[in-house]
Amino acid sequence: MADYTFYTNPMSRGQIARWALHEAGADYQSVIVQWQDKPAAFLAANPMGKVPTLVHHAADGDRVVTEAAAICLYLAEMHPEAGLLPNDGEMANYYRWTFFAAGPVEQAITSRSLKFEPTPEQEGMAGWGNFERTMKTLDGHLSASKWVCDGRFTMADVYVGSAVDWGLNFGIMPPLPSFVGYAERCQARPAYKAAKAIDNALIAEMKK
Amino acid sequence: MADYTFYTNPMSRGQIARWALHEAGADYQSVIVQWQDKPAAFLAANPMGKVPTLVHHAADGDRVVTEAAAICLYLAEMHPEAGLLPNDGEMANYYRWTFFAAGPVEQAITSRSLKFEPTPEQEGMAGWGNFERTMKTLDGHLSASKWVCDGRFTMADVYVGSAVDWGLNFGIMPPLPSFVGYAERCQARPAYKAAKAIDNALIAEMKK
Repeated sequence: MADYTFYTNPMSRGQIARWALHEAGADYQSVIVQWQDKPAAFLAANPMGKVPTLVHHAADGDRVVTEAAAICLYLAEMHPEAGLLPNDGEMANYYRWTFFAAGPVEQAITSRSLKFEPTPEQEGMAGWGNFERTMKTLDGHLSASKWVCDGRFTMADVYVGSAVDWGLNFGIMPPLPSFVGYAERCQARPAYKAAKAIDNALIAEMKK
Repeated sequence: MADYTFYTNPMSRGQIARWALHEAGADYQSVIVQWQDKPAAFLAANPMGKVPTLVHHAADGDRVVTEAAAICLYLAEMHPEAGLLPNDGEMANYYRWTFFAAGPVEQAITSRSLKFEPTPEQEGMAGWGNFERTMKTLDGHLSASKWVCDGRFTMADVYVGSAVDWGLNFGIMPPLPSFVGYAERCQARPAYKAAKAIDNALIAEMKK
């Protein structure tokens, strides 16, 4: 049995987790989940019925990890030899920008996609404030830093990079030079290419 | 100079970070940020203009951490002696539920507060699916586990516990026995009491 069972769908945030699995060099087996026919073992692991969901078959028993960002950070911890964990001086940026992407960026993108934007009066309540300020803040960091943790790729880049890559692809994030350059650096990673090749082949198969 | 400068407002998510600072036993100085008059040093540290924002005056220079959940996890790492970090077997739950609270729970609560709820067609795009499923999933975990990581309090409980505590106080989360019992266990923590006493005194002062 592989170390990990990876429930995913190629047209989902599962693409983030697959890239993370490849960066970590993890031994995993994929189970493709169709929206209309979800396996019982999957729903037992994650009652949200959401992909990606990762089940780690550890020595002390199965462990379930959900939420794409959590899967990334968990894999970095389980595979320290991959060198994706932050050192002491990198931890502030590592956590700050991973949660910035999981919170404000995700909310800004979702609210814009669903055509719901908070009014100026609601901005204090909305954790992301507004779309423009969120994009400007991320632009500020990526204009000054090659990666989330300055000069070095860490697991935080799998999550933040996936948000930027997706946002640009779907035309929701503005094609600022800092975003485009960062996405290109991410796309050049061998693990990114290997993971996307698998998901793109699965998508092509589904469209046949 | 204290080790940390803590930009906050007592009526904000800054309450989460203050509780985390007290759990970690951190040496910090508060700077109260008024909505209409934000200090330049604060805006330089966090262009989002959001509290809480933490500046760690580390030996190698200042480090900025934003996003309440990131501040929690960062403080756990900087203060390992406080015993708030997960061990190997606890990491899956630690990351899973922290990001579940920072993502789906935050989005479910915000969307309900702002009176915007996704249609059934939009649920696939919305990371939280819908409000009821998010609450039910969290209820499932907290019905089976005393804390996020089963039998032991970790820093994940400061963040998840704050979400549940806030959601119950504002009548947005349903008063399920699992939620109420968990909030009560959190409220019994000495660090929770110490932090809330400070914020409640500041709120009383502002209302004079």
